[in-house]
Amino acid sequence: MIAIKDRVRFVETDLMGVVHHSNYLRWFEMARVEYLRRANVMLPELIAAGILFPITDVQCKYIQSAYFDEIVRVEAELVDFSRAKLCFAYRVLRDADDVLLAEGKTQNVFTGTNGKISRLPQLYCDRIQALRQAKDGGLA
Amino acid sequence: MIAIKDRVRFVETDLMGVVHHSNYLRWFEMARVEYLRRANVMLPELIAAGILFPITDVQCKYIQSAYFDEIVRVEAELVDFSRAKLCFAYRVLRDADDVLLAEGKTQNVFTGTNGKISRLPQLYCDRIQALRQAKDGGLA
Amino acid sequence: MIAIKDRVRFVETDLMGVVHHSNYLRWFEMARVEYLRRANVMLPELIAAGILFPITDVQCKYIQSAYFDEIVRVEAELVDFSRAKLCFAYRVLRDADDVLLAEGKTQNVFTGTNGKISRLPQLYCDRIQALRQAKDGGLA
Amino acid sequence: MIAIKDRVRFVETDLMGVVHHSNYLRWFEMARVEYLRRANVMLPELIAAGILFPITDVQCKYIQSAYFDEIVRVEAELVDFSRAKLCFAYRVLRDADDVLLAEGKTQNVFTGTNGKISRLPQLYCDRIQALRQAKDGGLA
Repeated sequence: MIAIKDRVRFVETDLMGVVHHSNYLRWFEMARVEYLRRANVMLPELIAAGILFPITDVQCKYIQSAYFDEIVRVEAELVDFSRAKLCFAYRVLRDADDVLLAEGKTQNVFTGTNGKISRLPQLYCDRIQALRQAKDGGLA
Repeated sequence: MIAIKDRVRFVETDLMGVVHHSNYLRWFEMARVEYLRRANVMLPELIAAGILFPITDVQCKYIQSAYFDEIVRVEAELVDFSRAKLCFAYRVLRDADDVLLAEGKTQNVFTGTNGKISRLPQLYCDRIQALRQAKDGGLA
Repeated sequence: MIAIKDRVRFVETDLMGVVHHSNYLRWFEMARVEYLRRANVMLPELIAAGILFPITDVQCKYIQSAYFDEIVRVEAELVDFSRAKLCFAYRVLRDADDVLLAEGKTQNVFTGTNGKISRLPQLYCDRIQALRQAKDGGLA
Repeated sequence: MIAIKDRVRFVETDLMGVVHHSNYLRWFEMARVEYLRRANVMLPELIAAGILFPITDVQCKYIQSAYFDEIVRVEAELVDFSRAKLCFAYRVLRDADDVLLAEGKTQNVFTGTNGKISRLPQLYCDRIQALRQAKDGGLA
């Protein structure tokens, strides 16, 4: 499990005065990117190699609202992993008091630039496997 | 069921060359707002009356990518409805050839401005019920 | 001059209850894309030909706020044009009563995929010139 | 002058492979909010007091593109200040090598919740004045 922190931006709020629900998917993405970075899987490198990683499933359960200027902590854990797909689980917490704001999951597959399903090259799988086996992956 | 159409914006794409997955939640919202408008449930009127409608659950399954400048059609149907919550199901299609791009669901509850769960006033329930009973609600 | 119309999205608002100022740049873009479409200059075709069109300057003056669910009308006019750059001027109006909400300008240049400044091929210049010479370009 | 740092999000890119120009306005905002926080002017406190601070002018000149996953540094300086308005100047730099990516300015006024122009209460002016007089305001 890894965690990132981010301060809620003004633009992320909506006229109900809270963070718009679509922004949690963007926070999930930031945590997922950070997880992969720690495994030394750099997304620009994948793209340069013609490997895309489209999201195929997203779920999010919203528990409490996040507000402007709060610091949120987004935890990401790789819960399923093969050469065909990555499944991550996420928790969003208000950093000040650890209150759980949202939980979610994403699944992504791998494709070529033609959109056809492909497999993640072994090189990258090994890197992800190495991070998973290292206990907890370290906290942000 | 109602449907709206929208043209994919340049800003909605990402460096994989397709629409970023978070934007589908914004399309769902546009269709949901349109559904409620046809029921004569205007969200600014709810907010002015101190009634908020936070999303509590979102799911989206992505089937094919949407691309810049394509016209997408977003269908919304109210699949569960009570004074405590609204559940909508959505389909996003490429309008040119009716290819299904994504399917999703949302649930929202009602709260006061204090964040406490409340009930949708009967007035608005009646309006939604009337639209549901009218066959299909008409297409965009 | 061309014009597009769009309904303000919920997600485009912020906790001050109005449209966030950054979204006007996205509306400008929608109008600019539409202008070019009418000239038969399709941006995906440019990109496929290795021609990029980064924005180099933006200005916006905000006069009145736009609110959720209002229809805005965005007018775009090509005010300066060469093989090296395009300069557009924009006006955003509340469609219901023609009140002016904002005015702005953008300039973009052309580059290759390597980021180096290039010239727009004559083919596309001719198309833009043809639209400019046609009186007003037609209204949306 | 204050500075914040932020890592470019995947969602902030577009199909040209670079950060979409509208996102720089959001970075400006993050830096402006941070400047005001250091002056102990908290925006939620202003809003609660019925004071809004709409942006009335924005300019941005884009010099080089920002790319996914880079760290950008956004510097903000208060260049004009009265009870009626705040004018900030910004610079966006690639943090790794201090290359200047963009420069910009914003102006905001103060209004009541009715949209009418108002004056910033002396309390907050004093706080901003105190930060301005403190040399440089400290770096992030």
